[in-house]
Amino acid sequence: MTKLYNVAVVGATGAVGEQIILQLEQSDLPIATIKFLSSPRSAGSTLSFKGKPVIVEEATPESFTAIDIAIFSAGGSISAELAPEAVKRGAIVIDNTSHYRMAEDVPLVVPEVNEDALRQHHGIIANPNCSTIQMVAALEPIRQQYGLKRVIVSTYQAVSGAGNLAIDELYTQTQAVLNNEPVEATILPSAGDKKHYQIAFNAIPQIDVFGEDDYTYEEHKMINETKKNHGRCKP
Amino acid sequence: MTKLYNVAVVGATGAVGEQIILQLEQSDLPIATIKFLSSPRSAGSTLSFKGKPVIVEEATPESFTAIDIAIFSAGGSISAELAPEAVKRGAIVIDNTSHYRMAEDVPLVVPEVNEDALRQHHGIIANPNCSTIQMVAALEPIRQQYGLKRVIVSTYQAVSGAGNLAIDELYTQTQAVLNNEPVEATILPSAGDKKHYQIAFNAIPQIDVFGEDDYTYEEHKMINETKKNHGRCKP
Repeated sequence: MTKLYNVAVVGATGAVGEQIILQLEQSDLPIATIKFLSSPRSAGSTLSFKGKPVIVEEATPESFTAIDIAIFSAGGSISAELAPEAVKRGAIVIDNTSHYRMAEDVPLVVPEVNEDALRQHHGIIANPNCSTIQMVAALEPIRQQYGLKRVIVSTYQAVSGAGNLAIDELYTQTQAVLNNEPVEATILPSAGDKKHYQIAFNAIPQIDVFGEDDYTYEEHKMINETKKNHGRCKP
Repeated sequence: MTKLYNVAVVGATGAVGEQIILQLEQSDLPIATIKFLSSPRSAGSTLSFKGKPVIVEEATPESFTAIDIAIFSAGGSISAELAPEAVKRGAIVIDNTSHYRMAEDVPLVVPEVNEDALRQHHGIIANPNCSTIQMVAALEPIRQQYGLKRVIVSTYQAVSGAGNLAIDELYTQTQAVLNNEPVEATILPSAGDKKHYQIAFNAIPQIDVFGEDDYTYEEHKMINETKKNHGRCKP
């Protein structure tokens, strides 16, 4: 008999959460029960899974009782607080945030590249940021065949990476430009930054906030997470 | 007494022509008379120069009689046909199209980089495409100080480079996306290509058409025009 899994999605109402739910609906993962978790603000709303309504619940430590797999995508601070609680209750955590990526005892895994690293987990499995995943998936076959000495990278990133509020800002600004109305920028390029710039009909050379060394966190992520990939993609 | 110049702008009604006129209005060039020239289709329309109306005339060989400086930005085929006629009538042609850029007897000039090459002209002076100009202006001081071995370039180019019809297409498509209506692509990424793609809320890794070697003409331009820069920026 196939084992069936109790699955929880943390950050179910976010832009990435929506896509995780879509992928779970289309996947062959044998799911017994599904639980959608969120912040208190979004709790109580109703989403659907395979045609059936699912009420979104507030994520608390107790939410993870009897959960086998918990997929986290609700921001680093939520993962920091609740992923250990989920592990404590027996769940395997797949964390999509940046919080545990560089932690020594957490494997940072891209299945096509270093799935061997999965065996070394202690409850939490992290995945790199999206740009790194795409890049190492393309680079790994080249590395295997020829080796890699240096990689020069330019990324072209979508507003959606900054979440639903950023997508809304893009649409609102765009309509304002088309209407010849003034444009307001309050979120992009990064909600964590003090400066905001028009993104409609624009391209901004900044993802995430700038660190003290004048590199953005996103640039650091690509460098560090690429090097951290365990197993086959060791630098 | 300062010499005053009779100036003609060929392609005055285009997206680049508009900007050339704006620059001429703001420049210190001592202008005696100004002439706006265009295709028969746009001839007869009225533009303004320093607050005075100027009727756009059809560009013909005779248009260049008594012209001192003719600035061409109406497409390569117009430059091919009419630039020699302007030179024959005593004008100096500044050609913004790609037509004469690689011609051996035509200097390809970026003033901040190789203005010495201006002395070698035979009536026609070309300037590189926009990406090359910006790049060599930034690279030349580095080259002088340290030398250059290799340059790796990513460009981020605006729809406006493909002209007014392309700008219109971007706006029309954008409004269609905001309205949840179907999007029609008939011009971009290049009017010269058979395939067209949605540009609204998109980024297309193609400028100009692809050559037989799978490089686009724009990529070839950046490589060849950078190397052709005479004088101080010799490769």
